[in-house]
Amino acid sequence: MHSVRAEPDPAPERAEPGEHVCVLGTGLIGGSVLRAAAAAGWSVSGWNRTPVDHPDVSTDVAAVLARAVAVDALVVLAVPMTALEEVLRDVAEHAPGCALTDVVSVQAPVDAAVARAGLAARFVGGHPMAGTSASGWEASEGTLFRGAAWVVAADDGLDTAVWARVARLALACGAHVVPAAAAEHDAAVARISHLPHLLAAVLARVGADGGALALGLGAGSFRDGTRVADTRPELTRAMLEANVPALRDALDDALGRLGAARGALGSTGSVAATITDGHVARGLFTDHIRVDITGVDLTDLAALRAAGRAGGVLRAL
Amino acid sequence: MHSVRAEPDPAPERAEPGEHVCVLGTGLIGGSVLRAAAAAGWSVSGWNRTPVDHPDVSTDVAAVLARAVAVDALVVLAVPMTALEEVLRDVAEHAPGCALTDVVSVQAPVDAAVARAGLAARFVGGHPMAGTSASGWEASEGTLFRGAAWVVAADDGLDTAVWARVARLALACGAHVVPAAAAEHDAAVARISHLPHLLAAVLARVGADGGALALGLGAGSFRDGTRVADTRPELTRAMLEANVPALRDALDDALGRLGAARGALGSTGSVAATITDGHVARGLFTDHIRVDITGVDLTDLAALRAAGRAGGVLRAL
Repeated sequence: MHSVRAEPDPAPERAEPGEHVCVLGTGLIGGSVLRAAAAAGWSVSGWNRTPVDHPDVSTDVAAVLARAVAVDALVVLAVPMTALEEVLRDVAEHAPGCALTDVVSVQAPVDAAVARAGLAARFVGGHPMAGTSASGWEASEGTLFRGAAWVVAADDGLDTAVWARVARLALACGAHVVPAAAAEHDAAVARISHLPHLLAAVLARVGADGGALALGLGAGSFRDGTRVADTRPELTRAMLEANVPALRDALDDALGRLGAARGALGSTGSVAATITDGHVARGLFTDHIRVDITGVDLTDLAALRAAGRAGGVLRAL
Repeated sequence: MHSVRAEPDPAPERAEPGEHVCVLGTGLIGGSVLRAAAAAGWSVSGWNRTPVDHPDVSTDVAAVLARAVAVDALVVLAVPMTALEEVLRDVAEHAPGCALTDVVSVQAPVDAAVARAGLAARFVGGHPMAGTSASGWEASEGTLFRGAAWVVAADDGLDTAVWARVARLALACGAHVVPAAAAEHDAAVARISHLPHLLAAVLARVGADGGALALGLGAGSFRDGTRVADTRPELTRAMLEANVPALRDALDDALGRLGAARGALGSTGSVAATITDGHVARGLFTDHIRVDITGVDLTDLAALRAAGRAGGVLRAL
């Protein structure tokens, strides 16, 4: 495996003959997977608890999973964490041998639920880093994942044939694949997604406690810093509460740094260290360059994880 | 004074005959004031340390201030806090009787410096809530303040004739006027501007400490939450370090709330209180309605401050 500087993401990868994806839960994310895969030439089917306006999506989970077995589909778990156990029971009953992945978000609790359902052997976790504040089938669209990162868990012991199929699905959706250990994924999203939601909530409250005067003076920095607090609170809660240990670590880091800033304000009155360092760190984000992972060898998952850790992505397989 | 629901800001108010503004420091903010006032029909002049390409801006401070005296100009302090003392000495020497305001940012240290220079009698502080990450005369533009809030300090004992002139300048620039006590202004901007800069810096660092994997997964929430860390650190520092007591209070509020969230994560694993409350607070910001203050009576500044505290703004005088 070696890396070269990455180009913009190529067009979504076309399906090979016979590729079939079966999406369980066709809300914003699942519906978008189904639409994107269909547009790339995959044969598709889906189940949803409530009817949706698509000929290949049914509310009959047994029938949907029987068809998944018949066509050797890749089954995608795309329900909220709260509905996962029930759907896993259906899979265990009707399609226990199918290749299985998920697009739920945090990996650790999904891994645990899949293991409890006896489905770990053919499961490879996934997480497309895309979404909007909207939700439901009506909000789904086939272009949602274009240019987005799609983490595919690369822990030792997984079924490499399933890994390749999940990666091909991500590429079909126009995303690039980021290989990572499940725990590394959860730690990373705590820092760059879950902590921002917590800080936005607290900032919104501290601003609002300044009353109508403060609210009327709020401009760019306050608007940007609080924007994600617009998200429906039950969605934010579900996301954050599925990742408590990693979020706790990220919050402890933030609290340590804010405490240091508070100490400096109280003693020297300077915020130089905090502000200068934050500016440097922001530059690392805006200047971040993704490198292409090429010559992938799925028998060496440790090397694949190391490449992902170093900022590598797959745009073809 | 009574209030009705505010309409969108009207067009910038046209000058009355003989209105003249003299801007000391024609960078982004000062240059924009000069351009906006000129466009509204004010006669304008300016001083800048380095030459700028405008026929009425000079590097000769004595000549500029002599002209300001001759035309009874409203003098605007528009230099960074670090250059303020020197410019105030020039004003005290050449134009001690002129009406005086500022667009520096935080009020308390400006008030103190003005008092030390013996210029308090005809000074009324101001703060337009607008800016970009750019700086300097070349970045200035006459439309920068359109629709923005422009705080005009309304503490007891000020010269109400100067207050009216400062308010007219703000209206000429297309802004709406927010009357507030200097200390209330400083407390409010600590919450909605200075704290966001501190949180953005810390979030950027906690994210970057997640390494290339985390940086590559950063999307909307991280991008928005760290955006203001792009600002040149010396500008952010100067702004925050001029407002240490109020920023300390705002940061203590934030630390208390983040500490409570940390406690909940460690015990119940729930972030319900923080997230739900933050969502409500964000709604107070996005739904905030400015009300028009009408029938202004400048002999009752306490009532004017109370109206500003309640979310009132002036769009005409």
